[in-house]
Amino acid sequence: VESGTHDDLITLEEMRAAADRLRGVVVRTPLLALGERGLVKAESLQPTGSFKIRGAYNALCQLGDDGRRNGVVSHSSGNHAQAVARAARLLGLRAVIVMPDNAPAVKVAGVRADGARIEFVGPANAERVARAHEIAGEQRMELVSSANDRRVIAGQATCGLEIAEQLDDLGLAPDEPVTVLAPIGLGGLAAGVATALKALRPATTVIGVEPALAADTRDSLAAGRPVAWPADQTGRTVADGLRGEAPAAIPFAHLQRHLDGVVVVDEDAIGHAVAAAVGQLKLVLEPSGAVTLAALMTHPEQLPEGRVVAIASGGNVDHDRLVGLLARVYHSPEWSASNPS
Amino acid sequence: VESGTHDDLITLEEMRAAADRLRGVVVRTPLLALGERGLVKAESLQPTGSFKIRGAYNALCQLGDDGRRNGVVSHSSGNHAQAVARAARLLGLRAVIVMPDNAPAVKVAGVRADGARIEFVGPANAERVARAHEIAGEQRMELVSSANDRRVIAGQATCGLEIAEQLDDLGLAPDEPVTVLAPIGLGGLAAGVATALKALRPATTVIGVEPALAADTRDSLAAGRPVAWPADQTGRTVADGLRGEAPAAIPFAHLQRHLDGVVVVDEDAIGHAVAAAVGQLKLVLEPSGAVTLAALMTHPEQLPEGRVVAIASGGNVDHDRLVGLLARVYHSPEWSASNPS
Repeated sequence: VESGTHDDLITLEEMRAAADRLRGVVVRTPLLALGERGLVKAESLQPTGSFKIRGAYNALCQLGDDGRRNGVVSHSSGNHAQAVARAARLLGLRAVIVMPDNAPAVKVAGVRADGARIEFVGPANAERVARAHEIAGEQRMELVSSANDRRVIAGQATCGLEIAEQLDDLGLAPDEPVTVLAPIGLGGLAAGVATALKALRPATTVIGVEPALAADTRDSLAAGRPVAWPADQTGRTVADGLRGEAPAAIPFAHLQRHLDGVVVVDEDAIGHAVAAAVGQLKLVLEPSGAVTLAALMTHPEQLPEGRVVAIASGGNVDHDRLVGLLARVYHSPEWSASNPS
Repeated sequence: VESGTHDDLITLEEMRAAADRLRGVVVRTPLLALGERGLVKAESLQPTGSFKIRGAYNALCQLGDDGRRNGVVSHSSGNHAQAVARAARLLGLRAVIVMPDNAPAVKVAGVRADGARIEFVGPANAERVARAHEIAGEQRMELVSSANDRRVIAGQATCGLEIAEQLDDLGLAPDEPVTVLAPIGLGGLAAGVATALKALRPATTVIGVEPALAADTRDSLAAGRPVAWPADQTGRTVADGLRGEAPAAIPFAHLQRHLDGVVVVDEDAIGHAVAAAVGQLKLVLEPSGAVTLAALMTHPEQLPEGRVVAIASGGNVDHDRLVGLLARVYHSPEWSASNPS
């Protein structure tokens, strides 16, 4: 079968081993109340400003001989890049990152600050992947993919383990139906979180969220195989972390097994969610990190009844973009109508 | 003696009882790394956007007969107002809040959203206090001061209990010298936190932070008694939560006993700290909530060696002020010089 046989999905044991490695490295991010039913998992507060440190650090703790000796190479639109750079610094490893030349300046600066070397290529995912493979071969470094790696998925799954524990702490019964929303770029976070929650709280509904301008995973799940969108199409969304043109194979196998659906959000909804995060949660979210809030605020009718955990996956947004976006939203008629002061 | 005899300070037992009452009501806010030595306690993530819910809820759980029957009245520049309104709603109590007519719109809207009634008076603290006493008398409601109340101070002290636990969790030995920075308005937070930390980790240095334009507590500690600044002077700082003209008597007694010093910060440093919180921590802080970061960033030479915990006390800032402040800071020469991209 094209999607794999599912018996190679990550195990609870791998996720728990990842959680042990990550102790003292990641923040146990809080669940913040939003409205009557929302709980926002603020992964934007992680070191390097996104959940990506979970997967990157877990992978870099388990390198093969080449990686331990010569370091790691990776490709990323930004947040995985920063996470690999940070994990490499913490573990004393060399790192080279292949990034698209349209990556936000704040993400480029983050990678540089942690001492990794950057190579820029064009915006398409395939260019980054190809160049990273070349570098790995030439320099005998180990390639650590941002999603297509079970060590990375197991690391991201620790976000799901925490959510399960935090729902317990809130006194929600194990069989209480809760919906968890995870953004989908290449699918690593949604794959890990869905697999963790289905193991620990099987009554949980896990739904992926994509920009309407990059709904490749929705289409892929409908087709039963990864379907690519052209890079010049996915490049149009403001959610720069979710422009991946197709789900990666290993996360896709997890999503086929464990994801309950996909909700898509439009660009206006994403902008309003960024502004609402500032106003109501006091969180700075990048557009990619706010798509789950956008789904909760704009499409509650597409979600089951009950509590909703929205994973706010990252906060790395360029200053000018943030200021411009907030100024635009705050002066829009829709915002004034729904936020009287 | 004018400052009291210190045997009436809050006890560890009162703080721990407060922590029990607050379980499930407040967020255990994370300590976020900032630079090599900073740890930021993100109290801006609390319900109502500031630490004030700790003291307000603890006080409202322990009302006398009038308060339980007829509700509570309070006076506040904004964050305590919102916290009292929320606590009253959670506990099913009536609430009236006396606010200055120059309070930020976001804080006024927060109070209204929780169903409390607002009465506006002029900007001076004394006007608010007088009107709140009047209302309490007329309507037989209980007055809950924002700082001059041991139930409130014990509630704010739970922030200090958490810091002590979190330092333990980070593996810092009990006798490791750590500096904790707390903002000072009327002094309730700094009083509670200092008393908690001196009880649990006596090696901790606790330093208050004030705007240079409202350094009344620095002057009061030097004089050995509360010294008032004129409201038209303290009204000049952008840190609207720290414009109180003199420390309140009960917190002042705690500060005299347990505070190790005061650092003052200028208005530019406060603006840069708000911008740094957005860029580096992904936190939205109000100016009052960022003064401790300003002290850490601008006056490290005034702090002891070692780790520094900066309490980021709140995040309630008007949209337009936030956008304007960020735009101004990002385009200042100092910011460009220290944040190359």
